[in-house]
Amino acid sequence: MSPPPYKQLEQEWKRLHAFRGALSMLRWDAAVMMPRGSAELRGEQLAALETEYHALLTTPRVTRLLDRAQANCQALDPWQVANLREMQRQRDRAIATPASLIARLAKATSRAESKWLEARAARRFEPFAPYFEEVLQLVRDKATLLGQALRLSPYDALVDEFSPGVATADIDNLFKALSRRLPSLIRDAISAQETEAVLPIAGKFTASRQKALVTEVMSAFGFPFDRGRLDESEHPFTEGVPGDVRVTTRFELADPFGGLLGALHETGHAMYDVGLPQEWRDQPVGQDRGMAVEESQALLFEMIIGRSLAFAHYLQPLLAKHFGVSGQEWEAPNLYAQLTRVRRSLIRMEADELTYSAHIVHRYELEKKLLAGELAVRHLPEAWNAGMESRLGVRPAHDAEGCLQDIHWAVGSFGYFPSYALGSGIAAQLFEAMRADLPQTDRLIERGEFAPLLGWLREHVHAEGSRYSLQDLLQQATGRPLSAQALLRYLESKYLSVSARPETSSAAA
Amino acid sequence: MSPPPYKQLEQEWKRLHAFRGALSMLRWDAAVMMPRGSAELRGEQLAALETEYHALLTTPRVTRLLDRAQANCQALDPWQVANLREMQRQRDRAIATPASLIARLAKATSRAESKWLEARAARRFEPFAPYFEEVLQLVRDKATLLGQALRLSPYDALVDEFSPGVATADIDNLFKALSRRLPSLIRDAISAQETEAVLPIAGKFTASRQKALVTEVMSAFGFPFDRGRLDESEHPFTEGVPGDVRVTTRFELADPFGGLLGALHETGHAMYDVGLPQEWRDQPVGQDRGMAVEESQALLFEMIIGRSLAFAHYLQPLLAKHFGVSGQEWEAPNLYAQLTRVRRSLIRMEADELTYSAHIVHRYELEKKLLAGELAVRHLPEAWNAGMESRLGVRPAHDAEGCLQDIHWAVGSFGYFPSYALGSGIAAQLFEAMRADLPQTDRLIERGEFAPLLGWLREHVHAEGSRYSLQDLLQQATGRPLSAQALLRYLESKYLSVSARPETSSAAA
Repeated sequence: MSPPPYKQLEQEWKRLHAFRGALSMLRWDAAVMMPRGSAELRGEQLAALETEYHALLTTPRVTRLLDRAQANCQALDPWQVANLREMQRQRDRAIATPASLIARLAKATSRAESKWLEARAARRFEPFAPYFEEVLQLVRDKATLLGQALRLSPYDALVDEFSPGVATADIDNLFKALSRRLPSLIRDAISAQETEAVLPIAGKFTASRQKALVTEVMSAFGFPFDRGRLDESEHPFTEGVPGDVRVTTRFELADPFGGLLGALHETGHAMYDVGLPQEWRDQPVGQDRGMAVEESQALLFEMIIGRSLAFAHYLQPLLAKHFGVSGQEWEAPNLYAQLTRVRRSLIRMEADELTYSAHIVHRYELEKKLLAGELAVRHLPEAWNAGMESRLGVRPAHDAEGCLQDIHWAVGSFGYFPSYALGSGIAAQLFEAMRADLPQTDRLIERGEFAPLLGWLREHVHAEGSRYSLQDLLQQATGRPLSAQALLRYLESKYLSVSARPETSSAAA
Repeated sequence: MSPPPYKQLEQEWKRLHAFRGALSMLRWDAAVMMPRGSAELRGEQLAALETEYHALLTTPRVTRLLDRAQANCQALDPWQVANLREMQRQRDRAIATPASLIARLAKATSRAESKWLEARAARRFEPFAPYFEEVLQLVRDKATLLGQALRLSPYDALVDEFSPGVATADIDNLFKALSRRLPSLIRDAISAQETEAVLPIAGKFTASRQKALVTEVMSAFGFPFDRGRLDESEHPFTEGVPGDVRVTTRFELADPFGGLLGALHETGHAMYDVGLPQEWRDQPVGQDRGMAVEESQALLFEMIIGRSLAFAHYLQPLLAKHFGVSGQEWEAPNLYAQLTRVRRSLIRMEADELTYSAHIVHRYELEKKLLAGELAVRHLPEAWNAGMESRLGVRPAHDAEGCLQDIHWAVGSFGYFPSYALGSGIAAQLFEAMRADLPQTDRLIERGEFAPLLGWLREHVHAEGSRYSLQDLLQQATGRPLSAQALLRYLESKYLSVSARPETSSAAA
């Protein structure tokens, strides 16, 4: 007698999980280890595996098993019911997009990624344009097909892949609330900071010293180096699966913080993955609840914890230890002032918390237009530069600090950028709830005792996997639905409240 | 109208080729990059992909297409006919071994490999024994099933995987001829060398300096660093596919030659792979002609070229450049004397050319007994040590210099070791033919001009892929069938002829 349909489905997804892990490793290798000349070959390998993955997911057998399991779902426990729902969701999305399109997209993005790296080094968008055009057209086809099948607009169908259950309307609501308040908040914060004396920080910080610092900080956050790695790549990212998590960051000689903050961001992703329910690790319900929640964890680590006064206190002795630095400019209050400096700047990944959302809204508007065909690829650099000027009053000198700065579009990730802004909102909301439960939060951060914070996140977010919808997850963890309010409260208190800016050399006093 | 059956088969194998490439990358990563704690997870991933590969290879569709293509083979050109024959061979082997066995073997060897690394570090076989026992039992099952299907003895069925068309009888013939002559040759060489004054070589040679040296030598051999990598691992190996070749070696601080010779060995493999016919690279006929030919290329580089007086002349200035060394002990004649020193030693990978075959015959006898169940796993260390004592007069002090020194058995590669001895014979035979065609061979090696040598190998061996049988390939390249004669001629002239040992400081004079 064969096992019940639901159990057979679990077996199918166990196999799919191994494929996902292999694909992830090949992507990691392509960005970190692979010789440049092998990009096309790797594209073929990825395409072959993606195609096979897609074929396994869309067999008539899986469809039959899903139908039969659905008919018997009263025999399943709540986790199994949620797992079945997520299986169905994956299968519905896969069946809407033909295998040939997936294969072409995999090949095109692999090629475009390596051309993006070259174009970025040369600071010129033009040689990258034809490869990007190819990716964009394939993404457009995919969005149209997905939209038809899921009864969503093409763009919403893409957003739904990264942030299940979130629509353009939700994003617009959040962005509207932010856009109402942020311009004046940015103006006021900049003018308040003009009166502060921030000591400049200079020096040369070798990659090996930065890596040692970052490794110590990641260890304090509980990153499992026996089942994970930290490496360098052009653009920080997290790949792998729980059990073998691969984090990367980028070190620059003159910048002691960029590599650390990048690594903190990725460690946020990694710790979410590591904290997912172990017993469901090879099933859909055991995966993260989409990229908006992923980004919330990354931004909570990078922005809220990593740019707090308490963290600056934790950091001060570590900087002395690893960089051999001392002096007033390396003391916590000045570090904090450095890390919270508000600037109208060009690069999203180096942006401060306040201007960050402007970078996201900018990309959100542009990618909707690109997808709808309202903006031609060849006009992207100019549209980018004009938008940056009107939104933030700065204009890129070349495309590497303009529309070539991020990898997302090159690899076909349209609909991803809103996750960052949603993530900021979710992060602030979770942090508010965490502080209410753990009044000692600041002191714990100061001491580098991150375990209780991780414990809270694990209990309320990580361990739930994909059991609940994003909205339900947030409601249960924070008692409130998603909104911009917690984020705005957090930003106002951090950037405008006078008492929040330290004047003495010890905020713990 | 669908394409003809043969063309459909080519499409199937193109897909299989991408799988093979992905599997190879995952194995490379496991040995070079992966955190130790992730071994079990990686085993699951490999097993899932191996299972899928196996399933794709054994579908009824492939069987039908093979039958139909066979019936129409008069329409095919000679390369296509050979390709069809190799497809059939792969499919026959796959169908003889059930998918469940392949999956269990993949998991067991992945686990055993990581336990082997630990046991080797701890120098104790015992903790490794149960994992090895599991691998051995699965290999035994595989050998029995393959033997039944291919009408070969179980051991021959395994040998046939690595050296297609070679049987125990061929190996026994070669080993008999070697065993008749070698003991006295070893004795005479050692006694002749006793009168030579060989200056000792000492110093500390950092991994980074050794790597720079090895990189320069590999570049001279034409290794494509834009489509390949050199890394370090416990045991040197070559993975990847032409287009992305991954070579590893192992550096030891006190040994300036081990890492280089290991890398030369692997570069021999790599250059064979790189030289395979490009237009057939994703088809069976475009693959190497088995491991005996692979090892012939590796040993030709490592032993015949790498331990020649001419190569010592090439090496002398490179050692000065990379290690900053000078003095008589670093001059070519002394380097050559060092590299050709005959010693009764424990480690195969550090063995000289003359005693090397004894190490192979030793493993060949043991693995046949292990497979037949005539030697219990728990008795392996003692059997190993006793055999080394009787064959070479040396006894390991611990298992790391005994039965734990090689990775092969841990990863289930029974029937592989004979390839080394066959490879030695083939290498000597090819080199004899190459010298007849290129009388300048020594002078080219001295100058580091390896391109003409590579050109000869490419034309006569690499570019033929798997078009011919091993015996036919050798007959065409050298005008003779496989025998031990060229190897014995080469060894006698190198190790016994007085004129072959340099007395002056310049053999080029």
